[in-house]
Amino acid sequence: MESAVSFRMFSLSPFHLRARSSRFNLFSIPRQFPRNFSHLPNFPTKLNRHRILRISASITAKPSSELRRKHSKISEPNDNKLLALRELFYRPNINIDAYIIPSQDAHQSEFIAECYTRRAYISGFTGSAGTAVVTKDKAALWTDGRYFLQAEQQLTSGWSLMRAGNLGVPTRSEWLNGVMAPGSRIGIDPFLFSSDAAEELKEAISQKNHELVYLYDINLVDEIWKESRPKPPNKHVRVHDMKYAGVDVSSKLSSLRSELTNAGSSAIVISMLDEIAWLLNLRGSDIPHSPVMYAYLIVEIDGAKLFIDEAKINSDVMHYLKNAGIELRPYESILSEIESLAEKGACLWLDTSSVSAAIVNTYKCACDKYFGTAGTVNKKNTEALNGTDGTSCGPSYVYRSSPISLAKAVKNEAELEGMRNSHLRDAAALAQFWTWLEEEISNGVILTEVDVADKLLEFRSKQNGFVDTSFDTISASGANGAIIHYKPEPNSCSIVDAEKLFLLDSGAQFIDGTTDITRTVHFGEPSSWQKECFTRVLQGHIALDQAIFPENYPGFVLDAFARSSLWKIGLDYRHGTGHGVGAALNVHEGPQSISFRFGNMTPLLKGMVVSNEPGYYEDHAFGIRIENLLYVKEVSTPNRFGGLDYLGFEKLTYVPIQTKLIDLSIVSATEIDWLNDYHKQVWEKVSPLLDGPAQQWLWNNTRPLIKH
Amino acid sequence: MESAVSFRMFSLSPFHLRARSSRFNLFSIPRQFPRNFSHLPNFPTKLNRHRILRISASITAKPSSELRRKHSKISEPNDNKLLALRELFYRPNINIDAYIIPSQDAHQSEFIAECYTRRAYISGFTGSAGTAVVTKDKAALWTDGRYFLQAEQQLTSGWSLMRAGNLGVPTRSEWLNGVMAPGSRIGIDPFLFSSDAAEELKEAISQKNHELVYLYDINLVDEIWKESRPKPPNKHVRVHDMKYAGVDVSSKLSSLRSELTNAGSSAIVISMLDEIAWLLNLRGSDIPHSPVMYAYLIVEIDGAKLFIDEAKINSDVMHYLKNAGIELRPYESILSEIESLAEKGACLWLDTSSVSAAIVNTYKCACDKYFGTAGTVNKKNTEALNGTDGTSCGPSYVYRSSPISLAKAVKNEAELEGMRNSHLRDAAALAQFWTWLEEEISNGVILTEVDVADKLLEFRSKQNGFVDTSFDTISASGANGAIIHYKPEPNSCSIVDAEKLFLLDSGAQFIDGTTDITRTVHFGEPSSWQKECFTRVLQGHIALDQAIFPENYPGFVLDAFARSSLWKIGLDYRHGTGHGVGAALNVHEGPQSISFRFGNMTPLLKGMVVSNEPGYYEDHAFGIRIENLLYVKEVSTPNRFGGLDYLGFEKLTYVPIQTKLIDLSIVSATEIDWLNDYHKQVWEKVSPLLDGPAQQWLWNNTRPLIKH
Repeated sequence: MESAVSFRMFSLSPFHLRARSSRFNLFSIPRQFPRNFSHLPNFPTKLNRHRILRISASITAKPSSELRRKHSKISEPNDNKLLALRELFYRPNINIDAYIIPSQDAHQSEFIAECYTRRAYISGFTGSAGTAVVTKDKAALWTDGRYFLQAEQQLTSGWSLMRAGNLGVPTRSEWLNGVMAPGSRIGIDPFLFSSDAAEELKEAISQKNHELVYLYDINLVDEIWKESRPKPPNKHVRVHDMKYAGVDVSSKLSSLRSELTNAGSSAIVISMLDEIAWLLNLRGSDIPHSPVMYAYLIVEIDGAKLFIDEAKINSDVMHYLKNAGIELRPYESILSEIESLAEKGACLWLDTSSVSAAIVNTYKCACDKYFGTAGTVNKKNTEALNGTDGTSCGPSYVYRSSPISLAKAVKNEAELEGMRNSHLRDAAALAQFWTWLEEEISNGVILTEVDVADKLLEFRSKQNGFVDTSFDTISASGANGAIIHYKPEPNSCSIVDAEKLFLLDSGAQFIDGTTDITRTVHFGEPSSWQKECFTRVLQGHIALDQAIFPENYPGFVLDAFARSSLWKIGLDYRHGTGHGVGAALNVHEGPQSISFRFGNMTPLLKGMVVSNEPGYYEDHAFGIRIENLLYVKEVSTPNRFGGLDYLGFEKLTYVPIQTKLIDLSIVSATEIDWLNDYHKQVWEKVSPLLDGPAQQWLWNNTRPLIKH
Repeated sequence: MESAVSFRMFSLSPFHLRARSSRFNLFSIPRQFPRNFSHLPNFPTKLNRHRILRISASITAKPSSELRRKHSKISEPNDNKLLALRELFYRPNINIDAYIIPSQDAHQSEFIAECYTRRAYISGFTGSAGTAVVTKDKAALWTDGRYFLQAEQQLTSGWSLMRAGNLGVPTRSEWLNGVMAPGSRIGIDPFLFSSDAAEELKEAISQKNHELVYLYDINLVDEIWKESRPKPPNKHVRVHDMKYAGVDVSSKLSSLRSELTNAGSSAIVISMLDEIAWLLNLRGSDIPHSPVMYAYLIVEIDGAKLFIDEAKINSDVMHYLKNAGIELRPYESILSEIESLAEKGACLWLDTSSVSAAIVNTYKCACDKYFGTAGTVNKKNTEALNGTDGTSCGPSYVYRSSPISLAKAVKNEAELEGMRNSHLRDAAALAQFWTWLEEEISNGVILTEVDVADKLLEFRSKQNGFVDTSFDTISASGANGAIIHYKPEPNSCSIVDAEKLFLLDSGAQFIDGTTDITRTVHFGEPSSWQKECFTRVLQGHIALDQAIFPENYPGFVLDAFARSSLWKIGLDYRHGTGHGVGAALNVHEGPQSISFRFGNMTPLLKGMVVSNEPGYYEDHAFGIRIENLLYVKEVSTPNRFGGLDYLGFEKLTYVPIQTKLIDLSIVSATEIDWLNDYHKQVWEKVSPLLDGPAQQWLWNNTRPLIKH
């Protein structure tokens, strides 16, 4: 494609005479799209993959642990875990020179169960993102800018910290190519890498003739973790009520099967947990914040098998699954079933960006085993390798994005109704919370960020249908607000008071919907600079909220609307503006996004839910973010140029925006109208759910603003 | 890259239950990004290549010439040209089954000399875009929506019209695969296809085992054109004065050579005519509208050769070239020099998107000839195949975009100064022209669109340094304004009067700069609907003009600003918003653009010139477009988040915008301020160049607008 070519091969400096080459050479784009910015909590792991550029860097940077050792010679205890791990390298059936331990579980989940936190166990580093690589004599951990400080504190002396994205810091494969003797054997647990990620790694390390060794039968960290390893979760699965799901499982399965048939495939393996939950109208409690259960699902034209620990299935759910034609299999038997599929000549639909290397590789090997070289990829798809009469001519596979991702992203009316209702209850809880917090602060009560987050949870949990928080609450006072992924800890967190801006980004899982809202407030007197910044963030929020655009446009087209007012005075924010949100599912879901990452061509479609969350962050000073959830709707425009539908947004979130923070000198009449109209709706929709002081608070905070 | 993958493999319908699959399946995007919209006159041939999608279509549509024959049985004369052409197919040294005749010259020029208009000669169709394919018993012509009507009128009965982009109309290669017996020999003139285009074609027709035959030594159309073929142009070349060029040729060559060295290459072949003109600070008169000369240029580390008809070089220029170390060679000797480069073991930089298949293929074959299989592509480049000590180890090549394209796009201060000055003289001519036209119309004089365009040329040509128009003037009254590439013809064009909107898109080549401006006016009473549309186009124009954005952003990020006001009421326009413009060079140049074609990742850089030309077109009614040229400048913002430069635009064009057409009820105070400030500047800058009625007209048309 032209775009890719011109992007990769673009060339300029130093030929160009009239500009600083380091500035505008496309290869310097990471300065603008920082690689070490790892997007908001609000951006799902899946979206992570939309990286725009890879820069290769020479290996020159010093790991911080080395730097630290130079300065402080305090001896640290021998790391017994590393010793134990390395001993395993020498077992005859293992025989590796290095082992890579990623953060992920086997399903590319954003949040994971404790028993799968292997990277945290081996390295001591507990941040959400990071990869550990252990060789026979070295141990290194890669993480991004959010976690440099935390990693420095948590890593022991045996570890080198690799500050990913910093200039001169090698990638994992560059490092492996640099430090390992050519032809080394690099081991991984193939369940913990998507097939795409493993292939990329394999390719990268093949430059030094390293071999990527898949250790199917043993996870080396689990092996040394032993009895102290937490048990895998086994909470009961529940059925997601039809009144919230809107479409029953047999309709969803039948649509999926049509899709399989059209793609010329006879089966699909699904490993993303929210896709399984959505497709089967099931919900689980295996993972914090995400109402999903650990499982795999294989759907064939004439049947479906759910691979799950049977202890999670009570008799009602058992009955429900049976009625839907879904058989149960042990979670651990997934690979043997994958082999059976090849044996019977299936054409398997594989989304190699989410399905693990273990599964993809097992299927490919089985194709070879059962049919020699007959198992060939049918990349372009459109026509199956199966005979047109439906008879099989050998096993094969198609590589395509999961068809469930987009189907799940476009909400039906029942899902939207649940989202609307749960957002109103969430808004009521927030009104009660803000009423309480303002009162406490005006009374001079000392409250920490953790106290405040706990109280918020208390209010939320009283609402009907509350299940869980949808992510760790970001309760951030003053300078902490500038740490985009801030998580307050009881022993170190700040006080929420009337002197500083307070940013609160939180959300809930309800039985009928998922919420995610950010408000930034000041309990005293904000500075005029804070007000200007807040107002420009709000202007961006309003511009995106009010956007109308033709169907089929990808979200990134709208991203600049949210930044434009900040850009006017040379400000910006280093995260995307919007992510998808599940309906009583993951708070971050794809495939759509509204971001400066231009690679995501997914169009915004009627029924999709997205966040609208521009911000501005001043390091060591304050953070501002204003976030509502919206859904895409058709707009009734007076014209329809090109016969197209024109789309816009409808709000889900109805919580007041603090008008004290608005600089009236820079807002337009139209923007004030927007705010007043929003607050009018907040009052109308949320006040019936409140009484007493909280209702009074809502009244006070939804009064129209008048620009004189 | 992730984006490409998700784009191509995206899959949805019919699985998706809740939306009309034909609407949101990505494969239906052509509904929104119409393929048969071939952008503005304002978009260069080069940008054409940024096509986003190809849809394959089955061969079902009837060519219009067939339809016409059914209705009117008027016999048409035997097409002797086709007969003569087909006779050549059977010559033993030719021996082909079909021949493809594209519009292009050998340099991918947008405008071409008459002697190279082979497609027009063979087919009779004179539109600017189209490809003819002649087989032993069929002849078909592909063109796009702009030219369907014209092609129907001009093609004789031997020809089928292929309405490219219409549903069911096959591409050239689909058609060849459909109508030709497998294994046919398809001939082309390899000079007239870029290497990329030829490779794409070769790949497409290989599905039916057709062979693409390069006929190097003969152009079959020239062969039958014979004596009546116009002579190739041989006008004198002139030196572009340093006061306009800003950087001398030896500095440019030395920068280019550094670039070659960095890429590990030892030579580059340049075939784009504006790149040669820019690099050598030469200008020519071989082509209408473009001040360039037919030539090739080869730059090596230790020398440079210009391949050009020596008759074009007078003694001054000869001396100039000699001083710059540039040798002359005959235009026709390019291929033998390419062979010599391989023979001496060069590593040749090839931009296969612009360099012809003839050149690329000749070099590759010569590599094989002189060094067996040693001639290998060094695609990733970064390191040459040449030894690090500079000694050659065999001929090779790197495929990269031309380094001159971007260097040329970023104007230096001298070039910008020339652009500013020439735009003011152009503005003076336009003020005189509008003064005259308003007077004539108010006096009831009957004027055709051609009369008006001729008079405009008369005014322009009186300005100092006038050279030529920069494209065919689009003088379009009423409904003709909705034809984006309208060209009035003396015998058929409309009257310009006080009843209709009048759209005038025109430009000039001056010795010091290139202009391109569109104004839309009404000499009587516009309807309120016309005013609303005009105002929304103007709002888009203002939004883009006022945009401020961080460095390194590609132009497409700003495109939505220009459409937003139209989108609000369901309107849009089917062309890009901005294209690059040369400095006393081609009116359309890359690599930057501001467009909904998201593939162009070229960042907007300080010093680039772009057009700002949103529009709105109502078929059979009217067209509106408001176009200024702008250049990118650094903006002094109060902050510089991320340490980045923030960029914005400075206007080059200073011609009043008709305030009569503004609907005051929908413009904001800020927008009125913009307009009043612009008109103030127009008066200050342009009035000193005027006197008498034209100065009075300028005064009248730059008075501030007051919103009550």
